[in-house]
Amino acid sequence: MAEFTNKEVNLEVLKQRAYNLRWAEVEEGVIPLTAADPDFPAPGAIAEDLIAYIRGGYFSYTPKRGFPEFAESLSRVLKERKHEDVDPKLILPVDSAARGMNIIAHAVLQPGDEALVFDPVDFLFKTNMEEAGAKVNLFPMRFKDNGDIDFSDIEKYITPKTRMLGLCNPHNPLGKVYPKEDLAYLLELSEKYGFYIMNDEIWSDIVYSDAEFCSICSLGGERNKRTISVFGFSKSFGIAGLRVGAVYCQDEEIFEKLVKASLVDDTIGGVSSLSQVAAISCLTRCYGWLDEFVAHLQSNRDYALERLNRMPGVTCRKPEATFVVFPDISGLSIGAEALVEYLKTEEKLAIVPGGKQFFGPGSEGHVRICLATSREILAEGLDRMERGLRKLDSRYK
Amino acid sequence: MAEFTNKEVNLEVLKQRAYNLRWAEVEEGVIPLTAADPDFPAPGAIAEDLIAYIRGGYFSYTPKRGFPEFAESLSRVLKERKHEDVDPKLILPVDSAARGMNIIAHAVLQPGDEALVFDPVDFLFKTNMEEAGAKVNLFPMRFKDNGDIDFSDIEKYITPKTRMLGLCNPHNPLGKVYPKEDLAYLLELSEKYGFYIMNDEIWSDIVYSDAEFCSICSLGGERNKRTISVFGFSKSFGIAGLRVGAVYCQDEEIFEKLVKASLVDDTIGGVSSLSQVAAISCLTRCYGWLDEFVAHLQSNRDYALERLNRMPGVTCRKPEATFVVFPDISGLSIGAEALVEYLKTEEKLAIVPGGKQFFGPGSEGHVRICLATSREILAEGLDRMERGLRKLDSRYK
Repeated sequence: MAEFTNKEVNLEVLKQRAYNLRWAEVEEGVIPLTAADPDFPAPGAIAEDLIAYIRGGYFSYTPKRGFPEFAESLSRVLKERKHEDVDPKLILPVDSAARGMNIIAHAVLQPGDEALVFDPVDFLFKTNMEEAGAKVNLFPMRFKDNGDIDFSDIEKYITPKTRMLGLCNPHNPLGKVYPKEDLAYLLELSEKYGFYIMNDEIWSDIVYSDAEFCSICSLGGERNKRTISVFGFSKSFGIAGLRVGAVYCQDEEIFEKLVKASLVDDTIGGVSSLSQVAAISCLTRCYGWLDEFVAHLQSNRDYALERLNRMPGVTCRKPEATFVVFPDISGLSIGAEALVEYLKTEEKLAIVPGGKQFFGPGSEGHVRICLATSREILAEGLDRMERGLRKLDSRYK
Repeated sequence: MAEFTNKEVNLEVLKQRAYNLRWAEVEEGVIPLTAADPDFPAPGAIAEDLIAYIRGGYFSYTPKRGFPEFAESLSRVLKERKHEDVDPKLILPVDSAARGMNIIAHAVLQPGDEALVFDPVDFLFKTNMEEAGAKVNLFPMRFKDNGDIDFSDIEKYITPKTRMLGLCNPHNPLGKVYPKEDLAYLLELSEKYGFYIMNDEIWSDIVYSDAEFCSICSLGGERNKRTISVFGFSKSFGIAGLRVGAVYCQDEEIFEKLVKASLVDDTIGGVSSLSQVAAISCLTRCYGWLDEFVAHLQSNRDYALERLNRMPGVTCRKPEATFVVFPDISGLSIGAEALVEYLKTEEKLAIVPGGKQFFGPGSEGHVRICLATSREILAEGLDRMERGLRKLDSRYK
C-alpha cells in the first residue's frame, strides 16, 4: 500500500475536481485554504478496492441498511481506537455526515422542540436542527484560563423545550477536544433534562499527539442511551465526493427511529455500493496512512501557528485536533468578511470568514484556514496572508 | 465496448451482490424474479469510465448541483430520444429516482395537501407524497376495450385540495405507455385544477418495438410548467446500487424549490462523484448496449407472455414497456400472497405479490414477474411456476 507523502498534491487534477470553494471553483492563481477537504489524493488502498469491486461487473441493490462488513468494521475501529462499544446492529451507513446529522435531527426532533448549539460551531448543527423544525438556541462559548470550555452557566440556556444538544468533538472550527469531565457533565445534563445529544465525531481521527481524544460514548452505553453519534470519512481520507458516513447509537428504539428518518427501508435513502466499499477500505486498510497524514498535519499546524502569531493583529489558539486553524483577527482594522475579500482579490488567497453564515455569530472577528495541503502550498498561502496584512497595516497607519 | 449478451449472467457474483429480494437474499436454489433489477452486469463502458476516474486519485467535493456534464448529457439524451426540451440548468442529479420522487413531493406539497395516485402503481408515489405530509387519494384504473386507460371519471377523484398527480410513464407494474391524447388531457386537468404532475420516466428507455413512448414533456414547455419529472439509471443500466437519478422541470422557480428540498446547497444531499461518472457514462456511451438489452427483453416478454397465458387460471396483458409482467392470477384458487409463498416454498421461485404493500389495493389478484434475466433462467422460473400451478390445480379439483 502506498504511504502518505507530502509530495503527492496534484494541482492539475484538483483544478478539475475540487469543488466547494476549492481549486475548481477559484480563479486561476488563487490558493484556496477554504473547505476542510485535503489537497492530497485518497489512500491508494481505496482505489485498489474500488477497482476490484468494479471488475465484478455488478452494481445491484445493496442491503437496505448497508453491507454488514461496513458496520462490523466501523464497530471494530470505534472500539480499538476510541474505546467506544457500539453494536454493529446499531450502526447505519448514511450518505455523508451532513446527511447523518439531518437524519438524527429528524429522528427525534419535532416542530416546536428547541435545541442547544454551541456558538461558534459548524453551521450544519443549526441548519439540520432547524430543517427538522426545531428552534435553535445558542450557547456562547467562553474559555477558562486552561483553555477548556467554561460550562458554568450552560444551564441558563436550557429550557423546558430543549430536546437536543449539539456536540462537536473534536470541535470545528476551534480544534478543541473535550476533557472527560466535561463530557461527563454534559451526560449529567442530558439525564437531568432528558435531552438527546447529537455527537459529531467526524474529526475524531485527526487529533494531535499533544492531546488525547475522549469520546462521550467511551463513558459507557448506559449513560449514553440518549446520545446519537455521527461519523464520516471525508476529513480523514479525503473522500467527501463519495458521500459516506455513519450514524450510531446505544438504543434499539432510537436506532429504529434513525432508520425510519433515513428512509432506507423504502430505498429512498441509502449509500452507493462503491462508497460503502471505499469506507470499508478506509476502516480496514487505511489507518496506517492516516497516522502519517496526521503527523504531517501536526507539523503544518505548528508551522502555521508560529507564523500566524507573528502577524500584526492576529492571535491564534493552538488547535488540538482537526486540520483547520481559526485565528482571531479582531486586532485588524477590518472585519473577517472584508479581510477574506481583500486577500482573495489582492493576494490571491482564499480562506473562510467567521460570522453567522458558517460558524455562528460568536465567530465574528475570526477566519478559518485549512492546513490539509503540502507544506509548500501552506507556506505560500501564509506568505500571501502576511504580505496582505502588512500592506493593510501600513495603509491604515 | 462490450455488447450486451444473454450469456453474461454471473450467478456467483449475483449471490454476493444482488439484494432487495434478489439472489443474495433468497435461499440457495431459489430463482428470484422479484425486484426490477437486471441479472446482467452493467455495460462495460461504465466500469472503464469509473476506473479511469478512480486512477485520478481524488474524490473531492463535487459541484453542489452536480457535474455540468451530467445535466448536459441528460438534456441531450432527453431531446434526441424522447423529444423533451429540458434546459440543463433545470436538471438536478439526485441519489436515486426514489429520492427524486421524495424531493419533488417535499418541494411543492404541504401537510394538508392531497395528491392523486393511480391504483395500481409503484408504492413509491404514495410513500413519498405521504412522507411529505400529503393525503393520498387513489384513482382506480379501468381500461377501455383498446387497452388504454379509461380516464372518463378521473375528475370525480380530484378535490379542491388536490395539489399533485402521480404519473408513471411507462407504467410500473402494468407496462403501459400513455397515448399522447391522454397525456394532453392530464395536462388540461393540471391547468384546470392547478395541480403539479410528478412525472416518473424511469422506465422510458425500456419500451418495446410494438409501442412508442411519448413523454408528457414533449407536449411543450409552456404546458408543462407544473410538471416535475424524475429519471433514473437503475432499470436501464443495472446500477441501482450506485444510487443516481435526476429530477428536472421547465420552471426556474420550481427548480429552486427542488434544489431547496434536495438540501444539496448545504451538502446534506448530493450524489457520489463516482455515481455521477457512471451516469455520464450511461448517457454518453451505453445507449447502443441498451438497445440490444431491450431487444433481448422483448423476446423474453413474448416468450413469457405466451407461456403465462397457457397456465391454468392465469391471464396476462402484453406489456408495451418495462421489464416486468403482471399476470392476473385471480382465476386461481388462492390469492397472490399465498401463491407467492407457495411458489417460494414448494417450487423455489420468488416473485412479487400484488396487493396494498407494493402496488396498491387495485393490484390484488396479480403477481409481478421480472424478465430481466437470461432466457434460460426465465424458462426455468416459468417451468417452476407452471409445475406449481398444475399441482395446485389438481389439489383443489
